Amino acid sequence: ATSFRASEHQHIRYNPLQDEWVLVSAHRMKRPWQGQVEPPPLTTVPRHDPHNPLCPGATRANGEVNPDYEGTFVFDNDFPALQPDAPSPGPSDHPLFQAEAARGVCKVMCFHPWSDVTLPLMSVPEIRAVVDAWASVTEELGAQYPWVQIFENKGAMMGCSNPHPHCQVWASSFLPDVAQREERCQRAYQNQHGEPLLVEYGRQELLRKERLVLTSEHWLVLVPFWAVWPFQTLLLPRRHVRRLPELTPAERDDLSSIMKKLLTKYDNLFETSFPYSMGWHGAPTGSEAGANCDHWQLHAHYYPPLLRSATVRKFMVGYEMLAQAQRDLTPEQAAERLRALPEVHYHLGQK
Amino acid sequence: ATSFRASEHQHIRYNPLQDEWVLVSAHRMKRPWQGQVEPPPLTTVPRHDPHNPLCPGATRANGEVNPDYEGTFVFDNDFPALQPDAPSPGPSDHPLFQAEAARGVCKVMCFHPWSDVTLPLMSVPEIRAVVDAWASVTEELGAQYPWVQIFENKGAMMGCSNPHPHCQVWASSFLPDVAQREERCQRAYQNQHGEPLLVEYGRQELLRKERLVLTSEHWLVLVPFWAVWPFQTLLLPRRHVRRLPELTPAERDDLSSIMKKLLTKYDNLFETSFPYSMGWHGAPTGSEAGANCDHWQLHAHYYPPLLRSATVRKFMVGYEMLAQAQRDLTPEQAAERLRALPEVHYHLGQK
Ligand SMILES: O=P(O)(O)O[C@H]1O[C@H](CO)[C@@H](O)[C@H](O)[C@H]1O
Ligand SMILES: O=P(O)(O)O[C@H]1O[C@H](CO)[C@@H](O)[C@H](O)[C@H]1O
Repeated sequence: ATSFRASEHQHIRYNPLQDEWVLVSAHRMKRPWQGQVEPPPLTTVPRHDPHNPLCPGATRANGEVNPDYEGTFVFDNDFPALQPDAPSPGPSDHPLFQAEAARGVCKVMCFHPWSDVTLPLMSVPEIRAVVDAWASVTEELGAQYPWVQIFENKGAMMGCSNPHPHCQVWASSFLPDVAQREERCQRAYQNQHGEPLLVEYGRQELLRKERLVLTSEHWLVLVPFWAVWPFQTLLLPRRHVRRLPELTPAERDDLSSIMKKLLTKYDNLFETSFPYSMGWHGAPTGSEAGANCDHWQLHAHYYPPLLRSATVRKFMVGYEMLAQAQRDLTPEQAAERLRALPEVHYHLGQK
Repeated sequence: ATSFRASEHQHIRYNPLQDEWVLVSAHRMKRPWQGQVEPPPLTTVPRHDPHNPLCPGATRANGEVNPDYEGTFVFDNDFPALQPDAPSPGPSDHPLFQAEAARGVCKVMCFHPWSDVTLPLMSVPEIRAVVDAWASVTEELGAQYPWVQIFENKGAMMGCSNPHPHCQVWASSFLPDVAQREERCQRAYQNQHGEPLLVEYGRQELLRKERLVLTSEHWLVLVPFWAVWPFQTLLLPRRHVRRLPELTPAERDDLSSIMKKLLTKYDNLFETSFPYSMGWHGAPTGSEAGANCDHWQLHAHYYPPLLRSATVRKFMVGYEMLAQAQRDLTPEQAAERLRALPEVHYHLGQK
């Protein structure tokens, strides 16, 4: 019998954080691509555009004028998916027609006053200001809401409608689906094995090494064993940390530096401003999030869509929507490619 | 207190078929769209292109020559994600690193010899031939494999790399993720309520009427209460049917006719060849799929990405990937719009 090689032989892998499976069919990279090619990203974004509602001094949809901010700037989303005061749909009359109340707030956080920079092109101290703002907004909204979702959609390919560097924060009165699954999986693992799932996972990846992308004193970046997106990564602290506000100043500095390195590698991969959605997951917050959340380990997920080049993405359609996620290169191959890339941004290298 | 209106007040809804929630924020449709606009679909596709590997008489990547087929034509995918003979990855050495064997086959099914037609532009008897081919391939591959996933990716926006009308069939040695969830949910419902989840659901929707799109003697099409995609629909038989091959000739004719009507409405919605991924779910097959699958009701899901126009889609990114699915109009609003559309195709009306 032929011996198994992950890069040659399709197989399925288990995602223990979300109780899901992914089909890994690395030999599919051999097929020629004749499908849709994405438009190349905007190359010239003006540093300041008075009509861009995210810029310092600009007037937003609700008539408010932005301050002349110099670092980060947080404001309420003018078209929020979650509002603090929606009435409840009332009791459901049938188990197949269940609706529940949803309340919350949506904020936008600008990373920098300039529209023509992105995180990898910002300095480490500038990124550190973003990390601090993430911790503050988690603390502030987490006082009231059980879940505070920080996420960044980067690039038009990811539905991002504004090139100005920014992320969003949606806090909700309910634990969203993905958070519920991570809560359930991490709690079950802790009950069974006596330690947090992602603490053990990080330790194992440091030993096995084949999926590591970057390591630093306090952090690691790896392509998870169960990654779905071609160049998906997981960013983990080495220490057991439950939520962003718990990070020490040294951990925050180190995080800023490893993020800059990761995002530089991402941009260098296809020499493009690399699109992705990313977000932070930490222990639930709010009044009910008491002591019992030691099963949670803080982490960030990066989900980038590109597969073959700056303009050829992975489509999560058909089989993926109706049956199961499927990937076309192994996580180990992706990690190897990311590891090999320089930590100096291709824009700066050319200068 | 303000009284609840689904179209004004955000809320969450439960998907009992997949044990998931969706955030419904219909007021979001008011925000202006400044994000990415998709390229318009190809307008002129040649009826026959000898270099297109799906056309009658064309040579495929493996050197085989297609027959001069006149109806449907099924062949093995030349770049299959699943192959029948992959070796097993062997036992896992850690609960966080679980991999399992995956075996299967991938087929392609052409619907019609012409490249410039789509299902809604085909005649009812031509569509009936597709339905029969779906039933046959389920029977054939289901003899060996526990899951036979029939799916159609339509349109370049859905990663479809060939304009020729076709679908794919991926049969696997494992029950894919989505199938596992539907299995678990339908089994639990049957145990608790004594009848199949989707049989009761269809009956309820026929009574409530507000989410119905089309009904016929044997079938119904509705926007599910928990729909995620803007114009997502569910196609259900009225009778309890477990798998495609069980359909009677009358049910197959009626299915062909209701599919033509649904897909015509879809095309008419934004006067474009409407992109979507669709697929069939029925009871598991294979040697172990014995008598105990009465909790399954056959159904097809349609997942179309368009939201506002032929070129503005819904992006399932950021919050959706990291927290929970979110939709921008209510399922009732979507059903009302689809119901109101003519059943004559806009191409034919113009003639
Ligand atoms: O097989 P195709 O049409 O080349 O590929 C398309 O459908 C597959 C199954 O849904 C997906 O895995 C691919 O990402 C998509 O581009
Ligand atoms: O809020 P934005 O950036 O306008 O919108 C984007 O992000 C949201 C949250 O991930 C998504 O629901 C939208 O589909 C997407 O276009």
